[in-house]
Amino acid sequence: MGIVYLAIACGVIAVLYGLVTTAQVLKAPAGDAKMQDIAAAIAEGARAYLGRQYRTIAIVGVVVAALVAWFLGPISAAGFALGAILSGVTGFIGMNVSVKANVRTAEAARTSLQGGLTMAFRSGAITGMLVAGLGLLAISVMFWGLLTLGHYDLSVGEDRRVIVDTLVALAFGASLISIFARLGGGIFTKAADVGADLVGKVEAGIPEDDPRNPATIADNVGDNVGDCAGMAADLFETYVVTIGVTMASIALLLPNADHLFQLMTLPLLVGGVCVITSIIGTYMVRLGKGSIMGALYKGFWTTVVLSIPAIYFATQYVVGDMNALIGGSTALGDSAFLTPAAAVGATTITFTGMKLFWCMMIGLALTGVLVWITEYYTGTNYRPVKSIAKASETGHGTNVIQGLAVSLESPALPTIVISVAVVACYQLGGIIGIAFGATSMLALAGMVVALDAYGPVTDNAGGIAEMAGLPDDVRHRTDALDAVGNTTKAVTKGYAIGSAALAALVLFGAYTTDLGIYFPDIVVNFSLSNPYVIVGLLLGALLPFSFGAFGMTAVGRAAGSVVEDVRAQFRDNPGIMAGTSRPNYARTVDLVTRAAIKEMIVPSLLPVLAPIAVYYIILAVADQASAFAALGALLLGVIVSGLFVAISMTSGGGAWDNAKKYIEDGNHGGKGSEAHKAAVTGDTVGDPYKDTAGPAVNPMIKITNIVALLLLAALAAG
Amino acid sequence: MGIVYLAIACGVIAVLYGLVTTAQVLKAPAGDAKMQDIAAAIAEGARAYLGRQYRTIAIVGVVVAALVAWFLGPISAAGFALGAILSGVTGFIGMNVSVKANVRTAEAARTSLQGGLTMAFRSGAITGMLVAGLGLLAISVMFWGLLTLGHYDLSVGEDRRVIVDTLVALAFGASLISIFARLGGGIFTKAADVGADLVGKVEAGIPEDDPRNPATIADNVGDNVGDCAGMAADLFETYVVTIGVTMASIALLLPNADHLFQLMTLPLLVGGVCVITSIIGTYMVRLGKGSIMGALYKGFWTTVVLSIPAIYFATQYVVGDMNALIGGSTALGDSAFLTPAAAVGATTITFTGMKLFWCMMIGLALTGVLVWITEYYTGTNYRPVKSIAKASETGHGTNVIQGLAVSLESPALPTIVISVAVVACYQLGGIIGIAFGATSMLALAGMVVALDAYGPVTDNAGGIAEMAGLPDDVRHRTDALDAVGNTTKAVTKGYAIGSAALAALVLFGAYTTDLGIYFPDIVVNFSLSNPYVIVGLLLGALLPFSFGAFGMTAVGRAAGSVVEDVRAQFRDNPGIMAGTSRPNYARTVDLVTRAAIKEMIVPSLLPVLAPIAVYYIILAVADQASAFAALGALLLGVIVSGLFVAISMTSGGGAWDNAKKYIEDGNHGGKGSEAHKAAVTGDTVGDPYKDTAGPAVNPMIKITNIVALLLLAALAAG
Repeated sequence: MGIVYLAIACGVIAVLYGLVTTAQVLKAPAGDAKMQDIAAAIAEGARAYLGRQYRTIAIVGVVVAALVAWFLGPISAAGFALGAILSGVTGFIGMNVSVKANVRTAEAARTSLQGGLTMAFRSGAITGMLVAGLGLLAISVMFWGLLTLGHYDLSVGEDRRVIVDTLVALAFGASLISIFARLGGGIFTKAADVGADLVGKVEAGIPEDDPRNPATIADNVGDNVGDCAGMAADLFETYVVTIGVTMASIALLLPNADHLFQLMTLPLLVGGVCVITSIIGTYMVRLGKGSIMGALYKGFWTTVVLSIPAIYFATQYVVGDMNALIGGSTALGDSAFLTPAAAVGATTITFTGMKLFWCMMIGLALTGVLVWITEYYTGTNYRPVKSIAKASETGHGTNVIQGLAVSLESPALPTIVISVAVVACYQLGGIIGIAFGATSMLALAGMVVALDAYGPVTDNAGGIAEMAGLPDDVRHRTDALDAVGNTTKAVTKGYAIGSAALAALVLFGAYTTDLGIYFPDIVVNFSLSNPYVIVGLLLGALLPFSFGAFGMTAVGRAAGSVVEDVRAQFRDNPGIMAGTSRPNYARTVDLVTRAAIKEMIVPSLLPVLAPIAVYYIILAVADQASAFAALGALLLGVIVSGLFVAISMTSGGGAWDNAKKYIEDGNHGGKGSEAHKAAVTGDTVGDPYKDTAGPAVNPMIKITNIVALLLLAALAAG
Repeated sequence: MGIVYLAIACGVIAVLYGLVTTAQVLKAPAGDAKMQDIAAAIAEGARAYLGRQYRTIAIVGVVVAALVAWFLGPISAAGFALGAILSGVTGFIGMNVSVKANVRTAEAARTSLQGGLTMAFRSGAITGMLVAGLGLLAISVMFWGLLTLGHYDLSVGEDRRVIVDTLVALAFGASLISIFARLGGGIFTKAADVGADLVGKVEAGIPEDDPRNPATIADNVGDNVGDCAGMAADLFETYVVTIGVTMASIALLLPNADHLFQLMTLPLLVGGVCVITSIIGTYMVRLGKGSIMGALYKGFWTTVVLSIPAIYFATQYVVGDMNALIGGSTALGDSAFLTPAAAVGATTITFTGMKLFWCMMIGLALTGVLVWITEYYTGTNYRPVKSIAKASETGHGTNVIQGLAVSLESPALPTIVISVAVVACYQLGGIIGIAFGATSMLALAGMVVALDAYGPVTDNAGGIAEMAGLPDDVRHRTDALDAVGNTTKAVTKGYAIGSAALAALVLFGAYTTDLGIYFPDIVVNFSLSNPYVIVGLLLGALLPFSFGAFGMTAVGRAAGSVVEDVRAQFRDNPGIMAGTSRPNYARTVDLVTRAAIKEMIVPSLLPVLAPIAVYYIILAVADQASAFAALGALLLGVIVSGLFVAISMTSGGGAWDNAKKYIEDGNHGGKGSEAHKAAVTGDTVGDPYKDTAGPAVNPMIKITNIVALLLLAALAAG
């Protein structure tokens, strides 16, 4: 149990880091009265939106919790509730830190770029450490509670099942809330952003964040509820699902392993030590002679490098001899999936601690390579962004064509490196190896979220600087910080979806294993030559496309209503444009709030209901074996096409955004040129791509998989 | 052999229809000297391009033919050459008819809409019947030749293998040429179109097809080489692959069936009778009180309705008693795939003629439903196009966002109905049932191509009318005809890709069967829980994305060079814009020709080389069983994501185009409004989507599958 206490201690350290750093942030000067006034309006709008969003989600959450309790029992329901509540709490804290830090970043940027960077990054680091810390605490405390307070015994089959079910239910709670938060927040932020741009920049010809634009507060609220709260909930989900499902898979696949407890706690300890390396990394983020991106990378790479020995010693501490064979007997599921050495029907699986360590190194390497690829596709120094900027010279059409070309091209390298990582991890440790690869990726979540969450803070700081009429050089500093934020945001999304691909494979492994446990008499033919498998793949691959369509339409529709509201305000109150009277910011915020919450419901339920519908429809026209085959194939179909849809949307969107920034830096005619207008169009198109539809695919993939697991459990119970 | 003679006779009738109708078209008045002058320039450019394209392809073709001869023998090489040459011939004839008919359509439209419609549709029908007729003749004459001249015997295993290999090689020849033709033509037509629009409409502010625009002849050449020749080659490929692979699959799966010869000739006879029903259908295309679309639909539905009894009697003629069991023993491949009744290891497969008839009815129904769905997504009367038009009011950005939303939404219904059709055909007749479903879809190819090929002729006629300064009402008539062409073009693409999904499943079935025949000792695990299967799916699903990226980039790059050339011509010769001197049309045509041919090579080779590369890489890191599993999964991955990429691109592009036309009809401010400008941007973006990248995915899917089959044969031989 010592390993679990160590993990809990690391989680507590992360939370303490968050509390101490929050106190530091709050101590910093919060600017003049006008700035505080604006910041208060943003904070008020963000709290109002998030409150309403969580109230709506709570209704769905209570219904689902009741269903979980009915089918899987009260302990699973408690796990679900814990995951759901903590996912919400993470988002809420992230938002609250962000709305305090924005105005302080603007104030700090008055004196220096370093000051603004420090303030914004600290705020991001708070969110990052809370995501990782709370995620780690949720799993480890729950695991500890089940074993000690609940007296469940890992060596007893029924008890093990309770532990597995509770881990899966915890993951489900986190995922369900996070898809709502990602999508609702994503719709809010992009509807406000696109609406504000269309009616402000394009129609009225006033700059971004001009206080005369009634949608400008809504735009800034969006940064907090979408890019900050939504993202935090999403990464919390990714963390909990990955670590939780790794543990659950070990329990399912190696029920009789000698080292079962140790193997299950290893992901917790790895998560724990990497929280510490992430905290150390945050102190390395300092502007030297290099760029802002360079300063952020110093922190990231410090964490990566320190994590290598940390993971090694953690593994050694858990397994003892790194070269001794560990593992045990298994006879469940399709054992060819477990390890390459095991033929179908094999009854033992073994690997060494060293092999698991190498799998985790592959996870770290994959993270590094994905970061680099994303930077290549979205950074202003490379061909893709430059090609979009150049294509802007010949107009809106060629800008969008080139952007779509980059978007379609962007999944190629990530897919190849993910494939290499999957094969390498598999050859080292079978599906358990893949799970550990995913675990080490997610262990870095604290640092990655810190890099990401800093972006919306600087974006807000820029907005406050503009609205409060601070000197131009302050705005220049916040703009410089913000441009880097575009790349770090894309990096996080690429990282989340890459890890999701690995985690989803592990979930699929759990599905096939569970199938063997629950329905030992049904022979499910998962062969590609089973037409129900093909139909399942097709329908699964369809989900991310339909989901993306919902997201894009929602943003378009909500943005349209923003445009109409702002036009009406300009028409009814001519004093606004003259600068003599204040626009009704709250009305626009309220409008976007209602639109976003209304639009998020149906698409969020799509991945929950689709697996259930496909199972019952195929059951009706064929038999249960075919229905299970189609359902399993649906899970893989979602992963396969989800990976492409998500990467192409997030990389493409980031590239469009930075192509605009590249032109604004004075290339191809600079601000106000025809090329710039075309680039603004591309940026607008990329907005819902990268911040609404694309990132929400990540929780969507996992929900589909988790729902399938729960469906199996419910069918077996009922 | 009587059935084969009947099929040959039907093929000859189709060719005769083409010759007679060509004579009719040529007899019609070809307009005044100016019109003929313009038409001659277009024809010259089209012939020059196509000649150069075919010379380039010939180099690749000769190399591949040599490889086929080396690995699979001279008879297969002859099949390959026949497929390749006829694919080229089809495209060449289609283009030649089209460049004669365009000026005659413009002349006929001087007097009446009916006159223009008749002339354009006749020209389309010539291409349509030649596609179906030559396709049918290619397969049936080759089959006849092998059996009679070659004395190959279907009841002898080695002889059967020669027949199967030759059918596959024939399909390969057709596919390889058609991917080059589709992509090369697609790049040409859209580079010219986008380039002409950008520099003409957007920069110089002159209307489409204005004779002062140096790119306008190139734009009209593009309609002929892309939308006409490229499309004809593509549909010829689809026809030959579908019918050919249906026959090959029957020979592979039911080697010992009592009715083997009859079953193999049934697809030929079905193709034959449907050529006749298609010809009858063409005579029903007449404007009554209804719309132009209604007139075209009259022809289409006549063909569908007449085909029902025709297929019934053809089936009865071939099998005799419709309710008698036919089929035979099999022990090859994964027999669960063959028929739902057969458990793994079953040795006989039987079905009735009636069941095959119902499978073919499902194919016809699927065609009808796909046509309806495509019309819904691309027609101006329905929500999708109207929503894009409405979104244009708020600018370029929202137009593109809504267009992308429609694009992402559009694969949902087709995927669901294709899934339903796959399951239904499978339950009736296993994989053979799916093959017959695809066969009856393709049997309508003559009619469908006729509807499609009419479009570019009217587009050209409009261009000629504009350039020759014909009265406005002529241009209005050709515009009305052209608007319908947008929908029929989208319909053909949806139809081709839908049938490709079915045909590709049959190809995958052939792959698994061949694997069992060639490598009986290797146990290939196609289960989704084999990580090499997952990696294969991922890499396969990647191909259409990367291919799409190549296509989009190629158009963007080539269009950019058109813009620069036109700008240079305007700058160097101010007389052009003044209307006093003639632009150098040939220079622009030549420029686009070189660009298109250069750009088509690499992406066309991607689907040829990818399966080979994946096989050898997985072989190197794992073993042969894993490599075969990854290769098989790659084939399905290409189908799954190719379906979505192709449908979303072709439907989305069609919707964008017609949203522009809808605005031009006077909605949302009409021509010249801000909404119209936004809609022009959307149209430009949709152009390479719907006419370059999207449609080329269809041959790409099949090439990947065919190359895998040939790789198996080569590995077995070597």
